[in-house]
Amino acid sequence: MSAVRRRRLDLAQGRVELAHGGGGRAMGQLVEEVFRAAFDNPVLARAEDASPIGGGLVMTTDSFVVSPLFFPGGDIGSLAVHGTVNDLAMAGAAPVALSAAFVIEEGFPLADLARIAASMAAAAREAGVPVVTGDTKVVERGKGDGVFVTTTGIGRCRPGIAPSAGQVRPGDVILLNGPVGDHGVAIMAAREGMEFAEPLLSDSAALHGLVGALLAAAPGVRCLRDPTRGGLAATLNEVADRCGCGMLLQEAAIPVRPAVAAACELLGLDPLHVANEGKLVAILPPGEAEAALAALRAHPLGREAARIGTVTEDARRYVQIDTRFGGRRMVDWLAGEQLPRIC
Amino acid sequence: MSAVRRRRLDLAQGRVELAHGGGGRAMGQLVEEVFRAAFDNPVLARAEDASPIGGGLVMTTDSFVVSPLFFPGGDIGSLAVHGTVNDLAMAGAAPVALSAAFVIEEGFPLADLARIAASMAAAAREAGVPVVTGDTKVVERGKGDGVFVTTTGIGRCRPGIAPSAGQVRPGDVILLNGPVGDHGVAIMAAREGMEFAEPLLSDSAALHGLVGALLAAAPGVRCLRDPTRGGLAATLNEVADRCGCGMLLQEAAIPVRPAVAAACELLGLDPLHVANEGKLVAILPPGEAEAALAALRAHPLGREAARIGTVTEDARRYVQIDTRFGGRRMVDWLAGEQLPRIC
Repeated sequence: MSAVRRRRLDLAQGRVELAHGGGGRAMGQLVEEVFRAAFDNPVLARAEDASPIGGGLVMTTDSFVVSPLFFPGGDIGSLAVHGTVNDLAMAGAAPVALSAAFVIEEGFPLADLARIAASMAAAAREAGVPVVTGDTKVVERGKGDGVFVTTTGIGRCRPGIAPSAGQVRPGDVILLNGPVGDHGVAIMAAREGMEFAEPLLSDSAALHGLVGALLAAAPGVRCLRDPTRGGLAATLNEVADRCGCGMLLQEAAIPVRPAVAAACELLGLDPLHVANEGKLVAILPPGEAEAALAALRAHPLGREAARIGTVTEDARRYVQIDTRFGGRRMVDWLAGEQLPRIC
Repeated sequence: MSAVRRRRLDLAQGRVELAHGGGGRAMGQLVEEVFRAAFDNPVLARAEDASPIGGGLVMTTDSFVVSPLFFPGGDIGSLAVHGTVNDLAMAGAAPVALSAAFVIEEGFPLADLARIAASMAAAAREAGVPVVTGDTKVVERGKGDGVFVTTTGIGRCRPGIAPSAGQVRPGDVILLNGPVGDHGVAIMAAREGMEFAEPLLSDSAALHGLVGALLAAAPGVRCLRDPTRGGLAATLNEVADRCGCGMLLQEAAIPVRPAVAAACELLGLDPLHVANEGKLVAILPPGEAEAALAALRAHPLGREAARIGTVTEDARRYVQIDTRFGGRRMVDWLAGEQLPRIC
């Protein structure tokens, strides 16, 4: 519940906790009180995933520390490309160039490094964006964990298109391009060595093509977000917080694969809090909702797209959900993340 | 000696070694055989620190893993800004925007994180470039080492200016903007707890202003390089390798602070192999050398600038030095780096 205020960070005695990297409220607080306070500038203050740098270009960066490095449906290399391309896409931008910086732990197998580089290159080729520059650092054994990859992306905006959370208004419709929870559950299952009859694959994918199709059909899209760390719940709470509205979701309308639902049940996870790497939320005026939904469903990455709720007038900025059983409950914004190092 | 060929990496059984991050020949081999092989594209193949991305812009990225995080003359925050601004400056570009991504070890003091962010912000303000976007990840205790910072920079090229190693020709003059070895020796002394009568400070500084003054006086500059990891020796060997020429240096002309020379003697280091973070090498036609040297010396970061040698016609691509004692020796390109995690 974003209306609850936490105490400020203890900058004298406090320490960084895993929750500070979880994409939830604790991370928001760290970013606000440490980084935004230091780098005080209007572009950073927008708090969008990608920032304008002039000339119609936007810039985004992400470090990837996913564990394990290889997982069903992808690896740290493809994930880094997809994640960065998606942050550009959520700004309505087409990818122009990527950089890749590697921090490698001494003793890491060259075969694994080559496999990661190949996967990254394949993902970049498929997304149609070149990796133009890079860097390699090596740290001593025990001072890293295999490989960390930091990708930065530059994208070109479409004229007149600049989606942002601040534009969202009551009455807007919330769309989702497919089932939630696949990535987080795939990682968790890989970590725990769990096996399922139906294999659980990460949904990791580059969404800029899907966004292009969506914007062509519905140029009035107000806000685009990829619900990664913290899942759909964190993403919607963050948007509600920025636009000063509430949201009301329909649980029955939110797609979750049966195998993912079963795994979540087993692991004690809520699919709404689990990370996705090939999903987007589009918030747009009701008049464009039908055209947008049709455009999403016509694309291979949006076949299971659904209308999952609406934006409400609510000064408390509550995100609520009508459950399958006829009740209504809060969709909370976790302090941290159920699963550290999910991306 | 760049003419010597090493065996190819063992991509089946080999492992990453500290030397692969050292900026020397081992790193060159890793980049070539793992990364450039995978990301095969003409921009990356240029092997300059910053790469063109269209629209007169260049992009560069660097991960910083320096240890200790705080050292005399700077810290990982200011170093990350300077290093990235300098990579842009060496492409003849003015900085436009920076991104900053942090991988933080669980338990890291918030006070230190805030100090790093403040130092980074101060360095960015001083360089006149905004940090427009960022990311924060947290890894478990023992899976990182305090903080790693990855900065990416976008710069705008000056019309008609595109320095690169490939343009260097026999007869060109080699200039250096000041004494070498300060950064590496400051780090090493901090690590070893050594104290000197005269404090050893890193030379970490943003060089884009100096480069602007240099290019105004000498627009024909062929190649600019900042001799960081691997020092002046690695930088000149790399340029020699790319342009297919040799180089002849005058040892007596290369400035080294007495305290740095003494510390190197004590630590068994060669100042030519020690990293710098506020130095540049400019290679240019002899006709512009005087004007360039005057421009460098008129700038606070170039007061001790010197003409240190010339480019020679030499198919073996040897970098050689005339010593103070009247001899001539090879300036070798170390396989790795004398000092891991220097930046």
